[in-house]
Amino acid sequence: MIGKSIQEIVVGDTASFQKTITESDVYLYAGVTGDLNPVHINAVHAEESFFKERIAHGMLSAGLISAVLGLQLPGPGTIYLSQSLKFTAPVKIGDTVRAEVEVIERNEDKNRLQLKTVCRNQHNDVVLKGEATVMPPKSQ
Amino acid sequence: MIGKSIQEIVVGDTASFQKTITESDVYLYAGVTGDLNPVHINAVHAEESFFKERIAHGMLSAGLISAVLGLQLPGPGTIYLSQSLKFTAPVKIGDTVRAEVEVIERNEDKNRLQLKTVCRNQHNDVVLKGEATVMPPKSQ
Amino acid sequence: MIGKSIQEIVVGDTASFQKTITESDVYLYAGVTGDLNPVHINAVHAEESFFKERIAHGMLSAGLISAVLGLQLPGPGTIYLSQSLKFTAPVKIGDTVRAEVEVIERNEDKNRLQLKTVCRNQHNDVVLKGEATVMPPKSQ
Amino acid sequence: MIGKSIQEIVVGDTASFQKTITESDVYLYAGVTGDLNPVHINAVHAEESFFKERIAHGMLSAGLISAVLGLQLPGPGTIYLSQSLKFTAPVKIGDTVRAEVEVIERNEDKNRLQLKTVCRNQHNDVVLKGEATVMPPKSQ
Repeated sequence: MIGKSIQEIVVGDTASFQKTITESDVYLYAGVTGDLNPVHINAVHAEESFFKERIAHGMLSAGLISAVLGLQLPGPGTIYLSQSLKFTAPVKIGDTVRAEVEVIERNEDKNRLQLKTVCRNQHNDVVLKGEATVMPPKSQ
Repeated sequence: MIGKSIQEIVVGDTASFQKTITESDVYLYAGVTGDLNPVHINAVHAEESFFKERIAHGMLSAGLISAVLGLQLPGPGTIYLSQSLKFTAPVKIGDTVRAEVEVIERNEDKNRLQLKTVCRNQHNDVVLKGEATVMPPKSQ
Repeated sequence: MIGKSIQEIVVGDTASFQKTITESDVYLYAGVTGDLNPVHINAVHAEESFFKERIAHGMLSAGLISAVLGLQLPGPGTIYLSQSLKFTAPVKIGDTVRAEVEVIERNEDKNRLQLKTVCRNQHNDVVLKGEATVMPPKSQ
Repeated sequence: MIGKSIQEIVVGDTASFQKTITESDVYLYAGVTGDLNPVHINAVHAEESFFKERIAHGMLSAGLISAVLGLQLPGPGTIYLSQSLKFTAPVKIGDTVRAEVEVIERNEDKNRLQLKTVCRNQHNDVVLKGEATVMPPKSQ
């Protein structure tokens, strides 16, 4: 249950995780984070809003990026240092989001990786993009 | 149910939201995002880990920032454009996290605000910091 | 809040519990068990799969059998010893599952019951079948 | 997102998944399955019970076996045919359960695997044991 060390990772390595974001996900997420913004949990309000229907929290999709970093690349034992996020399109309830990460820089001296992180919906539209910096687990 | 327009906001405005992050929050968040990293959901593994116990997902705390932006400052109707995040300390199960946002730049022509965003635990330690860019709702 | 003792039970006794399995049930179950198999939580993947859509976890339906044994026949105080399960058809999100149990053997000396356990969907198709062995609570 | 075909699997292959079972897991599971047996959700009743405290549903641990079969060995695309379960010891709230599966028979003609399935707690006590029969995904 330990992820890859920096010695096992090269620039260009990729990993992804895909999940359909349900109404239940959005409501549980709202309760957990306190983000009860009506655009997420109020269908009457959301109809009048810019997006015309309830949308998922942008930061919920960011959680899928964290899932890829912490479970796959580099995997368990990774220290998450930073993340930048641009929210480029809404995720609607029922959309299927794929979080993709790709190693773009590798500093073995500092044990740090830079990764490009992108979330796309089922139409391949980018809904979220940015970069992550992580410390992979030390080799054992 | 509509937030403040840029005309109602000045640099230096602040808002915050504070919540105790429970074991239940962490487990629900794990299920919603798919982030079943053992450091969050496996007490036996977590004891051997860098943090010595199960910790909350860093991105869960980021959700509290989104809650402040979307509910208070600027509030409902805000378009969330981007967020940078540095994870500076772990949040343990049972910690109480306060997300604080402060307006640091204001561009009325582009209808954009830049906000400093910080999360602190109950000991006032910074656990997460960064900046957000948002478009406040138009005045009606 | 104590179930029936073996003296109060005869071969042929039956009980059942029926519940519609929602998307929310499937997603919560996925988080609780860690079973994020894409056939359950990824609509895009599931379309390409053998079942053509997201299905409920087979073991989720087995939980309805446990509900009948522990709440009705024999009821609270029962010790669940063993269960065999054959998964005979998929349960789709929105299907209504009825778990039925019937006492088929009774050993008063050992205080053990053998029960036939079947789950059917709303079309009366068997989705799960097997047998359970339990120790009913002692009479008080 | 497709698991191993039978050609990629040999007798003796193993996989496992470990998770701490929290109060939140037990309560969500109770709601999802309808198994509101007081031994799981009623601390006052459970104190008087055989186990002296609230315990997790045995069938919840069985869900961890399904997680291993569906995510790791053989992985996505697996058809779950049958499972036998002996509940050998209680799982208390807060226990950490590891589900282990091991391939014990392999029938390439019928595309079927038999697996030994065991769940252990953090003290290495067996809490659940049995066997599973599955059809791995076809190679593509």
